[in-house]
Amino acid sequence: MSPPSVRIYEVAPRDGLQNEAAVVPTAEKGELIARLAASGLGDIEVTSFVRPRWIPQLADAAELVGMLPRVHPARFWGLVPNRVGLERALESGIGGIATFLSSSETHNKKNVNRTIRESLAEIEEVLGVAKEEGLRTRGYISTVFGCPYEGGVAPEASLQIATRLLAAGADDIVLGDTTGMGTPLQVERVIAILVDGGIPLDHLAVHFHDTRGTALANALTAWRVGVGTFDASVAGLGGCPYAPGAAGNLATEDLVYMFEQMGVHTGVDIDALADAGEYAAGLLGRELPGRYHQYHRGARRRAVSRAVTR
Amino acid sequence: MSPPSVRIYEVAPRDGLQNEAAVVPTAEKGELIARLAASGLGDIEVTSFVRPRWIPQLADAAELVGMLPRVHPARFWGLVPNRVGLERALESGIGGIATFLSSSETHNKKNVNRTIRESLAEIEEVLGVAKEEGLRTRGYISTVFGCPYEGGVAPEASLQIATRLLAAGADDIVLGDTTGMGTPLQVERVIAILVDGGIPLDHLAVHFHDTRGTALANALTAWRVGVGTFDASVAGLGGCPYAPGAAGNLATEDLVYMFEQMGVHTGVDIDALADAGEYAAGLLGRELPGRYHQYHRGARRRAVSRAVTR
Repeated sequence: MSPPSVRIYEVAPRDGLQNEAAVVPTAEKGELIARLAASGLGDIEVTSFVRPRWIPQLADAAELVGMLPRVHPARFWGLVPNRVGLERALESGIGGIATFLSSSETHNKKNVNRTIRESLAEIEEVLGVAKEEGLRTRGYISTVFGCPYEGGVAPEASLQIATRLLAAGADDIVLGDTTGMGTPLQVERVIAILVDGGIPLDHLAVHFHDTRGTALANALTAWRVGVGTFDASVAGLGGCPYAPGAAGNLATEDLVYMFEQMGVHTGVDIDALADAGEYAAGLLGRELPGRYHQYHRGARRRAVSRAVTR
Repeated sequence: MSPPSVRIYEVAPRDGLQNEAAVVPTAEKGELIARLAASGLGDIEVTSFVRPRWIPQLADAAELVGMLPRVHPARFWGLVPNRVGLERALESGIGGIATFLSSSETHNKKNVNRTIRESLAEIEEVLGVAKEEGLRTRGYISTVFGCPYEGGVAPEASLQIATRLLAAGADDIVLGDTTGMGTPLQVERVIAILVDGGIPLDHLAVHFHDTRGTALANALTAWRVGVGTFDASVAGLGGCPYAPGAAGNLATEDLVYMFEQMGVHTGVDIDALADAGEYAAGLLGRELPGRYHQYHRGARRRAVSRAVTR
């Protein structure tokens, strides 16, 4: 039941950089993306086609996509909030687009100032056009495992949205644990409800946050019940951490380490990936929270400890 | 098969503080231990009965044990490297002792300058006397899931040692992932070999390190196959991290959060525990790596993010 190989969707260039105070120059973004692709990552979300004044960090979307390396087999993706964003994405020549809404009405309203119903109607249109144009497509559902405003979110709300997204042409239905509230038995239960409700496992993907340390345990659990596509961010970049040192996105290195050690094929070279993480930390000039990332950095300056270990 | 309630063995006062450059005053250690006990933790390793000049941070072992609060039902434990340490432990009036050796010959040699055979002989004597004196006892086996010098370690080596420790009177056989190399399928396999080899599940405990981010996923896996006793350290203190920000021990808050959210009883109040973690961070005057700990700290200074979340 657990897939012998998995697909990792890397989000650092978009999800990580949009949360940074600093605007990273386009050429350096391109270099980070090239290094991530060279490590073997097959799907990389590189930017967002939102209005430039909303997120100045990603205002260079078209220019960036135009300069991306074509020597790697990686597919590049962009986040698309609406029809206007889709037009920009199509003009850029990007290979895939990701749409998003929340399964919590309050969170959706605060995030995009619309009702779920309004969001769904526009997303269905976006997905339909994107498929006609030959793009790959994703539909993110946020707050599936809990909402910071509403608390618990009924899995049935996520199932209803997933059913609509699937019918509208989403290749991946991505279950997002937006504020890292999820735990393994819940992950198992929610996925079972979606699958029983008619969402095929091979259309399901998961996006976990490590806010409370549970991201990798949740990913393991999703894999055990048959999910084969996982979002992650090199060095744990991004994902709206609230404090310095706090974790947001699940770190790609941790996910790759776990899977490869278990004999599950990721296609990613952990050393090349960890080096890309070092490059990201250098770009941003600060410590990033990923565990393997920190271990990798520490390995170079490691001193022999005199303390008793066990 | 998965236990409906679990026992958490807290190691921060010993394992955390022994790795700090600063020596924490005895009264403040006592306060930390009292707060940990008040959160509901039933087993706390408070010190080590090694020669004071080896680990000056823990030179106050006897004084500390003498001042520990008796109002909480917690059992207090001390690490004991040899017969001399056992005498000091017995004099102190502590309730439990923990012995340790490695399943990797090279690691054991580097850690305690003995062969495994030599270590086992003395530990058997220590465990025998401790049981006669009415103490609770643990036998740690280090490097069960990999050795930084030898690489892989045969589970059969751990089984042989576990069998001897059990026969000598160890209440808990604790499997240590000393440098955080373990991954879930390996945890499952090693535990199966030990259980098939005659080690009862209710004598098994696990001590995971989060060096590469896998600690909680490993703990989840051990619980799923029937293990009910878990080591952890408040705020992720200690466990020989090699770099600032790098993780060592699995953080107690993360473990308690996961279990309690899954309906698995820990007996621990997460808020009181997180406050104890704040107190530990204050004592040491630096950021500690635990994920829930960082989230808890951040919750107070959280700002609304304008970024799109998912």
